[in-house]
Amino acid sequence: MALHEGLLTDLYEFAMARTYRVEGMAERAVFELFVRAQPGRNFLVAAGLEQALDYLERLRFDESDLAFLRRQTFGTPDFIDWLRSFRFEGDVDALPEGTVLFPNEPVLRVSAPLPQAQLVETRLLNLVHFQTLIASKAVRCVLAARGRALIDYGLRRAHGAEAGVLAARASWIAGFAGTATVEAGRAFGLPLYGTMAHAFVQAHGDETAAFLAFARANPGNAILLIDTYDTVAAARKVVAVARTLAAEGIALRAVRIDSGDLDALARAVRSVLDEGGLRETRIIASGGLDEDSIDALVRAGSPLDAFGVGSALACASDHPVLDCAYKLQSYAGGARRKRSTGKATWPGIKQVFRRAADDRYAGDTVALADEPIDGKPLLVPVMRAGHRVAPPESLDAIRARLRSEVDALPTALTQLAIAPPYPVEISPAIRALAAQLDAASR
Amino acid sequence: MALHEGLLTDLYEFAMARTYRVEGMAERAVFELFVRAQPGRNFLVAAGLEQALDYLERLRFDESDLAFLRRQTFGTPDFIDWLRSFRFEGDVDALPEGTVLFPNEPVLRVSAPLPQAQLVETRLLNLVHFQTLIASKAVRCVLAARGRALIDYGLRRAHGAEAGVLAARASWIAGFAGTATVEAGRAFGLPLYGTMAHAFVQAHGDETAAFLAFARANPGNAILLIDTYDTVAAARKVVAVARTLAAEGIALRAVRIDSGDLDALARAVRSVLDEGGLRETRIIASGGLDEDSIDALVRAGSPLDAFGVGSALACASDHPVLDCAYKLQSYAGGARRKRSTGKATWPGIKQVFRRAADDRYAGDTVALADEPIDGKPLLVPVMRAGHRVAPPESLDAIRARLRSEVDALPTALTQLAIAPPYPVEISPAIRALAAQLDAASR
Repeated sequence: MALHEGLLTDLYEFAMARTYRVEGMAERAVFELFVRAQPGRNFLVAAGLEQALDYLERLRFDESDLAFLRRQTFGTPDFIDWLRSFRFEGDVDALPEGTVLFPNEPVLRVSAPLPQAQLVETRLLNLVHFQTLIASKAVRCVLAARGRALIDYGLRRAHGAEAGVLAARASWIAGFAGTATVEAGRAFGLPLYGTMAHAFVQAHGDETAAFLAFARANPGNAILLIDTYDTVAAARKVVAVARTLAAEGIALRAVRIDSGDLDALARAVRSVLDEGGLRETRIIASGGLDEDSIDALVRAGSPLDAFGVGSALACASDHPVLDCAYKLQSYAGGARRKRSTGKATWPGIKQVFRRAADDRYAGDTVALADEPIDGKPLLVPVMRAGHRVAPPESLDAIRARLRSEVDALPTALTQLAIAPPYPVEISPAIRALAAQLDAASR
Repeated sequence: MALHEGLLTDLYEFAMARTYRVEGMAERAVFELFVRAQPGRNFLVAAGLEQALDYLERLRFDESDLAFLRRQTFGTPDFIDWLRSFRFEGDVDALPEGTVLFPNEPVLRVSAPLPQAQLVETRLLNLVHFQTLIASKAVRCVLAARGRALIDYGLRRAHGAEAGVLAARASWIAGFAGTATVEAGRAFGLPLYGTMAHAFVQAHGDETAAFLAFARANPGNAILLIDTYDTVAAARKVVAVARTLAAEGIALRAVRIDSGDLDALARAVRSVLDEGGLRETRIIASGGLDEDSIDALVRAGSPLDAFGVGSALACASDHPVLDCAYKLQSYAGGARRKRSTGKATWPGIKQVFRRAADDRYAGDTVALADEPIDGKPLLVPVMRAGHRVAPPESLDAIRARLRSEVDALPTALTQLAIAPPYPVEISPAIRALAAQLDAASR
């Protein structure tokens, strides 16, 4: 589907932007994007910034967009003219992708004339939410796999096309070895992996014929799916097939098991392969895997070399939503605060300061940006006046950052079990500002 | 993000398609797409067919796709040439969108030369899975709302752009009144709804000033968000604002409450509005709603007129994945069966027959397509030789179909609580065929 990115927003963003324009409210507004909670996670991983910046740089309204918007009640001629010449001219500070973050810490801060900063809310949330969600799930799979390779198999059950492609990117950042999604290979240069489907075996009827044909046609990537009928019987056929293929100079790279008791089958298959002289042939598991089942297989010492992860990864199926928000914290130089029940925000333009002790992260403080606070400031300038301050980061650099971030986390947070929360303090100055705003409004 | 739709597939589809080509395996293959289970649902709703057919009609590989594929190991010159002239030439039979379905019933059946039918697997699953998932969730919200209006607020936390837009479409099919997602309004002609965000109130500081400005700038759509600071106090300001606006000929359409105890606040706000003479001003609720919370509010008699539903809808957050599959059932005229543990398929080319008694659906039989079985056959021809047999159905027709489908369901299935399963039988002929295939393979 070809989508009009300028219209990927909620209707109210246009209604508000036009109203601000009518009122002449174009002073500088500062919005912060943050996550309120992290159920089922010990930490989150910032991701999606690259797509967010790309969106801000490219956001335009073409004549077909404008023709549609003109038919809406807010589509007055002066507002349509404003949209026609729209360019995002704001500043953005953000956590670099691959940075570990916690609830209430801004991931992204937008400072721009109010109508501009408002208009981009929905798509910024949409882009940053999804990859942060998936990277935060994927890193748990990586921790569970303890060095074994992980491959993203999620496209078929990802929520649409963009989710499939961006899940591949986010899982690569988290340490996956690659993806099956071809478009993610093209768009991001990710390593592509693939085996065969059950249909391939079924179409041949005879497994031996299917295995021989696939290996001969794909000699560099001979990975055979062995659970279509009887997994252990198929492993024996693999041994026979390997003898035939060896004479042709073709080695079997791996077999894949997609169903049944993966631990028991992997052990049985490993024995059959080893006895058949196929000690170098790897075993890949797939089929409804998530970090918990991967952890159990690894702890059991199951002889599995790689895992394909689908729905659990691409849909973050245990917790498919992060409660995130994009909130106004300052307008025309004055701090702003929302006090809605259960959803109050901390006011002011903020920074996150992270302290370390003995090479481990020891605690964060969310403070006003200009407050003198111990620790490394995490939000860095990424866009000024609508232009990036640096070229896009490489995915390798982002992936390396996350690896060192995880190494610096308190050990308990790198376990799958939910640990006591990492300490995140709200600075005294922010608390004082909130109290002052509340008092002034009474 | 501009995606290359031809590459929205798993790598192995290309590897298999090329291998079939090398082997000369281009006989007719029949694949069926079905769902294995429906946790948390009493029935599912078929959706996404329109996008699936559109994909099949438009699928091409352009030179930039081919340049990328050429660099893969399977990218041999003859295969690249085949892809260059690729046109999907198969037949498709499917459940019309808006049809109620149950596990193991084919949603879609593809009959095409094997390499073609294989190549389209991943994207067909991706498209049909997502909208079926969302429509099946959305219809539960509609049942819970018992005639009150529902609006899709899901884009910001939907999994990417396409998910946001297609969730709007699927929820409209299920009976939602409309969506906040502008691009869904453009792409599908859906009614668009919008109010204001907390940022709008915060930017003004003073609620009364914000309410007056918004109503004056949007006189036909004056919906005011009243929970930024103190909801009941804001309702009193609304009454005062309404008096000012009445003199200008502007009526307040509604107020929205997005946090707190929605039932208690709605009652308090209703009283304030009624006492202030605003009996026609509606109250809209939003903020983490799903079918259960909507049901509770409606049962409590809460004076709410409409509900905005976000993440629970657009991510189907309680069950964000349907266990669906696209499996080979027949090749070159011979039935095929997968026997993997826990994932065995029923072989043969199938049809779903639905029986009714006293204007209610009484039970389905999944049978061979040519078996004489009581009931209405549900899969209908939608594509022949790569061309649609009819123009796209209107969304209104699809929505009306689902409404009459739900009216025909046994009452217990239209409740939110999980009822005993609707009876779906596998025909004796299919069971005999499966036994025969199993025996032949021993």
